[in-house]
Amino acid sequence: MSSTQNRSNLVKPSSRLKEGRALALDVWSIFSATNLPADCINLGQGYMNFAPPTWITAAAEDALKSVAPNHYSHPRGRIRLREALKAFYSPQFHRDLDVESEILVTSGANEGQYSVFTAFLEHGDEVIMFEPFFDQYLPSVTFNGGKPVYVPLHPPSFSTIKPTSDDWTIDFDELRAAVTSRTKIIIVNTPHNPVGKVFTKNELEAIAAIAEEFNLLVMADEVYDCLVFDGKEHIRIANLPGMWDRTVTVGSAGKAFAATGWRIGWLIAPPSIIQPTLAASTRIIFCTNSPLQEAAACGLEQAKERHFFEIQRSEYDARRAVLSQTFDALGLKYTLPEGSYFILLDISKVKFPDDYPFPPSVLGRGRDFKACWFIAIEIGVSSIPVSEFYCEEHANIGEAYARFAFCKDLDTLHRAAERFQRLREYIHD
Amino acid sequence: MSSTQNRSNLVKPSSRLKEGRALALDVWSIFSATNLPADCINLGQGYMNFAPPTWITAAAEDALKSVAPNHYSHPRGRIRLREALKAFYSPQFHRDLDVESEILVTSGANEGQYSVFTAFLEHGDEVIMFEPFFDQYLPSVTFNGGKPVYVPLHPPSFSTIKPTSDDWTIDFDELRAAVTSRTKIIIVNTPHNPVGKVFTKNELEAIAAIAEEFNLLVMADEVYDCLVFDGKEHIRIANLPGMWDRTVTVGSAGKAFAATGWRIGWLIAPPSIIQPTLAASTRIIFCTNSPLQEAAACGLEQAKERHFFEIQRSEYDARRAVLSQTFDALGLKYTLPEGSYFILLDISKVKFPDDYPFPPSVLGRGRDFKACWFIAIEIGVSSIPVSEFYCEEHANIGEAYARFAFCKDLDTLHRAAERFQRLREYIHD
Repeated sequence: MSSTQNRSNLVKPSSRLKEGRALALDVWSIFSATNLPADCINLGQGYMNFAPPTWITAAAEDALKSVAPNHYSHPRGRIRLREALKAFYSPQFHRDLDVESEILVTSGANEGQYSVFTAFLEHGDEVIMFEPFFDQYLPSVTFNGGKPVYVPLHPPSFSTIKPTSDDWTIDFDELRAAVTSRTKIIIVNTPHNPVGKVFTKNELEAIAAIAEEFNLLVMADEVYDCLVFDGKEHIRIANLPGMWDRTVTVGSAGKAFAATGWRIGWLIAPPSIIQPTLAASTRIIFCTNSPLQEAAACGLEQAKERHFFEIQRSEYDARRAVLSQTFDALGLKYTLPEGSYFILLDISKVKFPDDYPFPPSVLGRGRDFKACWFIAIEIGVSSIPVSEFYCEEHANIGEAYARFAFCKDLDTLHRAAERFQRLREYIHD
Repeated sequence: MSSTQNRSNLVKPSSRLKEGRALALDVWSIFSATNLPADCINLGQGYMNFAPPTWITAAAEDALKSVAPNHYSHPRGRIRLREALKAFYSPQFHRDLDVESEILVTSGANEGQYSVFTAFLEHGDEVIMFEPFFDQYLPSVTFNGGKPVYVPLHPPSFSTIKPTSDDWTIDFDELRAAVTSRTKIIIVNTPHNPVGKVFTKNELEAIAAIAEEFNLLVMADEVYDCLVFDGKEHIRIANLPGMWDRTVTVGSAGKAFAATGWRIGWLIAPPSIIQPTLAASTRIIFCTNSPLQEAAACGLEQAKERHFFEIQRSEYDARRAVLSQTFDALGLKYTLPEGSYFILLDISKVKFPDDYPFPPSVLGRGRDFKACWFIAIEIGVSSIPVSEFYCEEHANIGEAYARFAFCKDLDTLHRAAERFQRLREYIHD
């Protein structure tokens, strides 16, 4: 066998990568800092440009100075963090959470969700997700043999004055029609990325009724639960009657404590869900890094007495206001998010020259890819085109929007606001 | 639908968990500290009872004090760590490793290996592994639709005087017979856990020939590459002629720097292997924790000038000697490991009462489970029964051995040695 033959035969990747869109050039790579001007203000990716609080990082430093917190954690997570999660979340779930069977620490919320799919999906099982959807859901489902089924959130009508994320609505007939005999899981992401929608009690009750009727598991992705604005109430679907038994709730230290690179997440669910998910997670990652679990524990332990989440929420409220006021002044429509740290700007009125020198990676995609590229290059503020968060069939719904992240310090957001003034000349009705 | 009906229908775990033995009570749980007397000396699990060097943890503390190293890393890994890996490993691989396409940082070696299987296995593809095998291989393969195929390492014959890990041998006819048209990957774990075998050049060349002939990918699990004793040479199969293109080499900061809880591992391979594995890993975990990548980078950057690995090797050599001299004095056989931090004790001559009060978890298993339990309870030193690292068909080969880990400080090992004196009364030819 010649070496050339070898190479062409060799190492053929699994077909699951293609099914999961995992080999395509993704939106994060196209709009990564390396492809954009060096001074572009990055409001694309959802990570903070500030550090976690020093009273929290100090706990990681202490951990690094001792022995056990540098070595394997129990695959369930370090007991200090599980105790802290119990104390923090038990009142919110109106139950005395059991640290041995109802709490699982994972390597970020992402790995936790992946492990749920590994634990529960048989080949061909269907998972319902609302569009726009967090883009990792798709490969997480297909890598585990599942099939994603999409139900769009419907954007506010053109005539809505000052729409909020609450004006993105579910058509429950569509949701019901999406259920088949193979449906196993429905993902409910509230507060929602990228819409910012905080699902209402009515909506969650209607979803719960369908989950009960068709015996579905609910994955409640609530990683933005600490970022809800305007007095809106974050409701946990796990707390609705009968839903605890079929719901796994997902949380994240990265979102809670401005530490997206720590990769500390958690799942809260009944033992019937945690036990199989632990079995999966233990084999995928064995356990989560130990020193940063100690830090996350410290954050949860002291959050209440420090009024940490209240203060943080008002800080994010101020950040959100910088962008919303900028868009208002420009006469651009957007949906004011009631939760999360994303704001969806309606870019329909932003006109760019047809012959603008777009790169090939953008040319083949929706109008929003072009608009986001144009704004990044000409205005110097990057964002993420929202059609990426839809299946091909529904991509046109997303084409009207660009997602801007406001998890940045006020100075950065003010500089972005200044730059946005230059957008005025490209806005036409 | 009644609530009782719901519960019985609900959340049925995926069949892959059972196939991967992931729901069974595993050996680590049976022999965990919580099941054993509080003062039992833990030589079972392979983690250190000492901390990583302070000059390395200091780098993590610095990272925690800055902004970017608390946030998402590039899914390939932080550039500082990739540059450090390039500088450290390029000479060892006799090539100028490319940080963008030939190095991938993973959440521990475990997740790296899992992602390789996700990236390359189609349903029904076979993966060959030598027994005894690192127990995570089995579910990592089956969760990704693969089928493990086992080829035993043959233990030293009874008459071998002072056997070493080198006396565990491969029957190459058996290996060749194990290859089918569905074989896709062969795992070569050198230095080997739990045998400690450092594969010889002849052995690796014979494996390489089979990999070339049948167009197989080689997963070279070399996480103990920095722990090779007695002047033995660690040979990388990736360096054999023609093998770079089909080999992925796995490394671990946890083993290298006494930081098993940091979950920092890495893969070194050609772009044709790294690219699909990155696509898988990005979806499974998104990225690896950032602060501890900075620390691992620091460790690699300064290891040479500090003679870190030479010093560490001699420390482990001394630790190994405590156990081997103890076993010699007791007249017990063992295989002296040429690599890793495990030593296999032949427990055939350790006799225990048939009516000893073994727990149910141990009763249904091989003789080695009983012997390890008896030694843990009566002598106060825990170990791991080796039949766990075999398929059912070959479990009898492992029943003669218990695995003791010597990644513990000298004081602990000396205390274990003292306790071993009490084993004398149970040793009978």
